[in-house]
Amino acid sequence: MENNSSKDHRLSGRLYFLKFETSKINECLDFISSKQLHCRGAQHYGFPDSDRNTIKATGGGAFKFADLFKEKLGISLDKVEEMGSLVSGANFLLKSVPSEAFTYMNGQRNYEQIDHDDLYPYLLVNIGSGVSMIKVDGDGRYERVSGTSVGGGTFWGLGKLLTKCKSFDDLLEMSHQGNNRMIDMLVGDIYGGMDYLKIGLSSTAIASSFGKAVSENKELEEYKPEDVARSLLRMISNNIGQIAYLNALRFGLKKIFFGGFFICGHAYTMDTISVAVDFWSKGEAKAMFLRHEGFLGALGAFMNYQLVEEFPYPSHLPGDDHKKPDKNLNDNGIIECHVRVSN
Amino acid sequence: MENNSSKDHRLSGRLYFLKFETSKINECLDFISSKQLHCRGAQHYGFPDSDRNTIKATGGGAFKFADLFKEKLGISLDKVEEMGSLVSGANFLLKSVPSEAFTYMNGQRNYEQIDHDDLYPYLLVNIGSGVSMIKVDGDGRYERVSGTSVGGGTFWGLGKLLTKCKSFDDLLEMSHQGNNRMIDMLVGDIYGGMDYLKIGLSSTAIASSFGKAVSENKELEEYKPEDVARSLLRMISNNIGQIAYLNALRFGLKKIFFGGFFICGHAYTMDTISVAVDFWSKGEAKAMFLRHEGFLGALGAFMNYQLVEEFPYPSHLPGDDHKKPDKNLNDNGIIECHVRVSN
Repeated sequence: MENNSSKDHRLSGRLYFLKFETSKINECLDFISSKQLHCRGAQHYGFPDSDRNTIKATGGGAFKFADLFKEKLGISLDKVEEMGSLVSGANFLLKSVPSEAFTYMNGQRNYEQIDHDDLYPYLLVNIGSGVSMIKVDGDGRYERVSGTSVGGGTFWGLGKLLTKCKSFDDLLEMSHQGNNRMIDMLVGDIYGGMDYLKIGLSSTAIASSFGKAVSENKELEEYKPEDVARSLLRMISNNIGQIAYLNALRFGLKKIFFGGFFICGHAYTMDTISVAVDFWSKGEAKAMFLRHEGFLGALGAFMNYQLVEEFPYPSHLPGDDHKKPDKNLNDNGIIECHVRVSN
Repeated sequence: MENNSSKDHRLSGRLYFLKFETSKINECLDFISSKQLHCRGAQHYGFPDSDRNTIKATGGGAFKFADLFKEKLGISLDKVEEMGSLVSGANFLLKSVPSEAFTYMNGQRNYEQIDHDDLYPYLLVNIGSGVSMIKVDGDGRYERVSGTSVGGGTFWGLGKLLTKCKSFDDLLEMSHQGNNRMIDMLVGDIYGGMDYLKIGLSSTAIASSFGKAVSENKELEEYKPEDVARSLLRMISNNIGQIAYLNALRFGLKKIFFGGFFICGHAYTMDTISVAVDFWSKGEAKAMFLRHEGFLGALGAFMNYQLVEEFPYPSHLPGDDHKKPDKNLNDNGIIECHVRVSN
């Protein structure tokens, strides 16, 4: 956080967000070191001495890389519990950042005004390598009710093996160019081109993901990697949407927020998840997305410093038209805000 | 059906089951032709003339291959609705065939005695190329409540692309030899070898299917096909078990029967589905399997002849020990039975 100091430990500034793939942890350490990020902040604003060589961190990496951070940067990672961090981060975003949540349908974002008094309960679906589904009942009140191992790591891992693609972003971009009908078996492929109306499945619905590869005697190399990526993305997004909806139904939750690095603001991913939730709920439930989706855990860990949240600068409050948030608010970029330190 | 005729249209005999992959439809036609199977039965037992060149068939193939059957064998396929056939077939098996249903845990089949008065409602999960989940409330009373495109076609299709394996049975056999930990990212891989006890995940739970392929810079060819097959089988079986359980929960169904060609009596598939249902239901629900799992639709289409079901020969009723059914009852092989024709 870039701070404008004040005597009463009121901090105003910007939250900057950056991400590094886990495999590039050394680039992350070099970046922190070059900017001396680990030396700022704690020294200035009345934090106890014990906090000066410590930074908050969450997720598996906080355990896995603790020794590396100590060795390379001389700092200890203060591990903040992952689910709690995700929830704190989501609650902060939903309550304090205007135009944070939106629905996505037919290529259009529709920003939702969140009623603070009617936020809870909701289902938070965090799609990282795996997927966690958390029922959130209030500040600090939550339960991980479900999850699935078929998540972002599956998309990126299987995608890498199937397409030899070199980066997650490239794989997403490839999927954008592909056509899943080349490999997925559609209802029409089984029923000779017809719908299966009795059970409400159109001829273009996917009957079996990757099912066409069974009957065609084609090698992997004969399929376009773009089509493979598209089928994979659709299979995983649809599956997550379905399991999320079934869990929302189970607990009577009307709001489902999707976050995590997997989504990446990618149009087709959001579209597939939205369509899945719409299809399975017969229009009863809506998928909602978060503009800072990839940083829930990091934000939550930051909130774990005894901060009292305040609203962002009023200049960033949206106008009446919720379809057009302030253009200065870059997705996943910067949040300007005041926070007060309560220690 | 091999018949021992009687004057009152009571048929006694054996039901034989055979399967052919869809891509081998010509082998199927040759087999029917060589045994003259399409000429038997209807001519003998008082069926109307219109039935003599007609056989009952169900599933997508009944539409897709109708012209082929007419052209090659001169017979019409009388299309019986697929979901209804699956349900009729399952009901017949559960009510009329002793030791048909069993649970599977720790490598052991435990045959279940089905109480005819307490059979309904149940959830029927048919895993073919895709998966249908049907809530069954009685004879002819059912609703397809859910499904997933991640099914047998996904296992076989993706498996073929990833391992170059030539047959479904080989792929299953390969998965038996593999170790999913080589490619799946486990909770312990994320948490530096530790459990994540707060949310009840052990270090050996799968956090992300195929997630290890993300961090390892290995090409597809550097992974053992057996390990790939194992991860794939586990991902799909676990996912089906989870979605099935969530649907059973939704409708308060205590019994979940799994059928369809995907299972194939394969130990590891049944084990994974059983563990998934046990894990997600916290021991409340049990997965049950059917010995004639792959023939529900065919049996149901056969039932569509106005048959009155009767019990199989008494000699096949099991003894008191339900773990050891009559050894003459081969899985997926033959059912001896009486049926009465009511036309």
